[in-house]
Amino acid sequence: MNVKRLQQCLEQVNQFGYSDEGISRLAYTNTEQQALKHLITQFENEGMTIEIDSVGNVIARREGIDPALPAVACGSHIDTVYNAGNFDGTVGVIAGLEVIRYLNEHQIKTKHPIEVIIFACEESARFGVATIGSKVMTGLVEKDELTHLVDKDGITLKEALQSCKFNMAEANRAKRKTDEIKAFYELHIEQGPVLEKEEKQIGIVTGIAAPTRFKLQIFGQSAHSGSTPMSHRQDAFSGAAEIALALEKAARQEAINGTVATVGNCEVKAGAMNVVPGETEILIDIRGISEASKQRVVEKLYKIIHDVEQSRKLNIEIVKLCDECPTKMDGAIIASLKETCEKNGFSFIKMASGAGHDAMNMAKMYPTGMIFIPSKDGLSHHKNEFTSIEQILVGATLLKEEIMKAAQVTNKAYC
Amino acid sequence: MNVKRLQQCLEQVNQFGYSDEGISRLAYTNTEQQALKHLITQFENEGMTIEIDSVGNVIARREGIDPALPAVACGSHIDTVYNAGNFDGTVGVIAGLEVIRYLNEHQIKTKHPIEVIIFACEESARFGVATIGSKVMTGLVEKDELTHLVDKDGITLKEALQSCKFNMAEANRAKRKTDEIKAFYELHIEQGPVLEKEEKQIGIVTGIAAPTRFKLQIFGQSAHSGSTPMSHRQDAFSGAAEIALALEKAARQEAINGTVATVGNCEVKAGAMNVVPGETEILIDIRGISEASKQRVVEKLYKIIHDVEQSRKLNIEIVKLCDECPTKMDGAIIASLKETCEKNGFSFIKMASGAGHDAMNMAKMYPTGMIFIPSKDGLSHHKNEFTSIEQILVGATLLKEEIMKAAQVTNKAYC
Repeated sequence: MNVKRLQQCLEQVNQFGYSDEGISRLAYTNTEQQALKHLITQFENEGMTIEIDSVGNVIARREGIDPALPAVACGSHIDTVYNAGNFDGTVGVIAGLEVIRYLNEHQIKTKHPIEVIIFACEESARFGVATIGSKVMTGLVEKDELTHLVDKDGITLKEALQSCKFNMAEANRAKRKTDEIKAFYELHIEQGPVLEKEEKQIGIVTGIAAPTRFKLQIFGQSAHSGSTPMSHRQDAFSGAAEIALALEKAARQEAINGTVATVGNCEVKAGAMNVVPGETEILIDIRGISEASKQRVVEKLYKIIHDVEQSRKLNIEIVKLCDECPTKMDGAIIASLKETCEKNGFSFIKMASGAGHDAMNMAKMYPTGMIFIPSKDGLSHHKNEFTSIEQILVGATLLKEEIMKAAQVTNKAYC
Repeated sequence: MNVKRLQQCLEQVNQFGYSDEGISRLAYTNTEQQALKHLITQFENEGMTIEIDSVGNVIARREGIDPALPAVACGSHIDTVYNAGNFDGTVGVIAGLEVIRYLNEHQIKTKHPIEVIIFACEESARFGVATIGSKVMTGLVEKDELTHLVDKDGITLKEALQSCKFNMAEANRAKRKTDEIKAFYELHIEQGPVLEKEEKQIGIVTGIAAPTRFKLQIFGQSAHSGSTPMSHRQDAFSGAAEIALALEKAARQEAINGTVATVGNCEVKAGAMNVVPGETEILIDIRGISEASKQRVVEKLYKIIHDVEQSRKLNIEIVKLCDECPTKMDGAIIASLKETCEKNGFSFIKMASGAGHDAMNMAKMYPTGMIFIPSKDGLSHHKNEFTSIEQILVGATLLKEEIMKAAQVTNKAYC
């Protein structure tokens, strides 16, 4: 693996969409398509064949000795949110390219074909729906479900695809078969603070958390803040505060299972200095990779809502916005990644991914593993997102070792 | 006292500014001035002399046997907020008129003159400053401090006064002398739920609370709600929730002293479902008539802020917006009101006023008392504000008895 080449490759991709406010390389924009074109050239230069499906997923393939065998695949995305950083998604793609370059450089041959996939439209920033490319590839979404999607400028997903010469009518044909891929790996920055704080080089992802989300509308009685004694109040905001702290406590008690709970927003009505709040709305996001643990937190949430309604004489309307099931990574791949880390002396922990990734969809069809590398200060979706090139190198090396193992190297020196 | 006449008088005043959304009779508007003109005619019909000072305070005077003696005064205001109810302020004015009508009807003479004062611009709704009339009358504000006031249409207070033929340049001459008034009484609706819930007819106000107000800016670290473990968070909203509940607890512990504390607004940044809040701002309003009690709550607030900063690794900026001293009502008047309630069989409690009133300013110069009557559901500044005519009658009767006592009735039958 060549660290300088890896660095240059990262820098080249990040010229597309650069500004002082961060990288903006939104899905299906001219900027993103130019970056893809640049990468496709790099893959072609390595002798790979390129297939671009009808929603814009790019599949770069290095044939194996037996092309009939299922491919060993890795990949991620290069589209970004507005004013993003340099690493989210992109790192997984350029690491895949570096693995191919390493194999070619050392004339390493594998029984299985190897694919590097650049998934289309992973970020929800443009169309409000995340991981569109991998959802289509794994048949988790039909084209009919995508027709209503519109970006903030009123451009439909169909129009955006057309502008890139993709044909949404053929989207369902982008679905791949179960026997096409032997194993899928995604290398990604953690987007959280755990690896940095635990001083580990690698996070072996055991599962990808799924969110259960609620909107709570808390109704009390607005009243004069001066003339209403504490004992006569039905303060909606105080109710919200009590629920938020109880929810936090419930999630803390599930720390061992990695379940987290967040009140991400709170809006008070009327929201004036001299009015006891009569109405408050809060948004709740609960995530975990243990469905049982997440359910315990949800049950405690329902209990505190009920208790607060009674004790504070409030009415609370619960709107469940979504309730998804966590995705487990493949047990054999987790064990293999652990073994390879130990063999190479990489420090690691097993951990959950709180954020969603393309690997989450791929895992529905194929044995899938995810490799996390540290994010400085846990920062992501921000221009100050940072992972050092040495940290990326460790992750890319682990990815290479795993791919070589799964794809079955035939050169004796590497077996 | 004539309950039908009292009712009609209330209804007549409330024709000015009526709409389906409530009464809008803002200070110095044509609507309010017409209502004043109507009332002035009523006072003149009762043989009173009228003086209107340079900021629009109306002083209706019924001479005493000895005009050199200080007046016994009562009064309130008839200006309203936008979409107000029928009772806030107006009740105190029409009760004063009914007292005069009763005295005339029964040809009752008093040694001291009696005044009914309609204070100008009590509500802050138009110019953002409350009780302007009584502040000017008692010299608590100079005209120079009023020159910057502008309403939402860009009309200055000076222009508003001019449109009513008042001359702001002479505002300072509206200040009255200490020896002009023997005692001042204000009858007002409670604007809170206490009398209704305690099933009392009268609240004898012991003091008017003054607010101490803070804005807290709580800075944590925004982070991904999925990928940030509970133990690694610096959640600004959770900090706000903890402070709000601790503040509420501190105020509840001061219930015996009537101190109250409110978080009236809370704003979360970024305020998104999938982001641990990095920044939260809350508004805090603490009121009480016991300065010592209020200070205990403020001290506990500072302590919890410090504790939350430490335990949650947050930075909290404290902006003190105001810190006013409570106003005590006159002890002799409180005792006298209590005696009169007992004599007439009116149920009563002594209580604090959480809201500000003209009586608060008058108390700085004259022995002052306040009489509260119940507000249905504690509702005020709302078209559904309600106090029954019978409840008003009880308050007006207490006012009459007190005025007769203080003004010294000379007719033997009434002594």
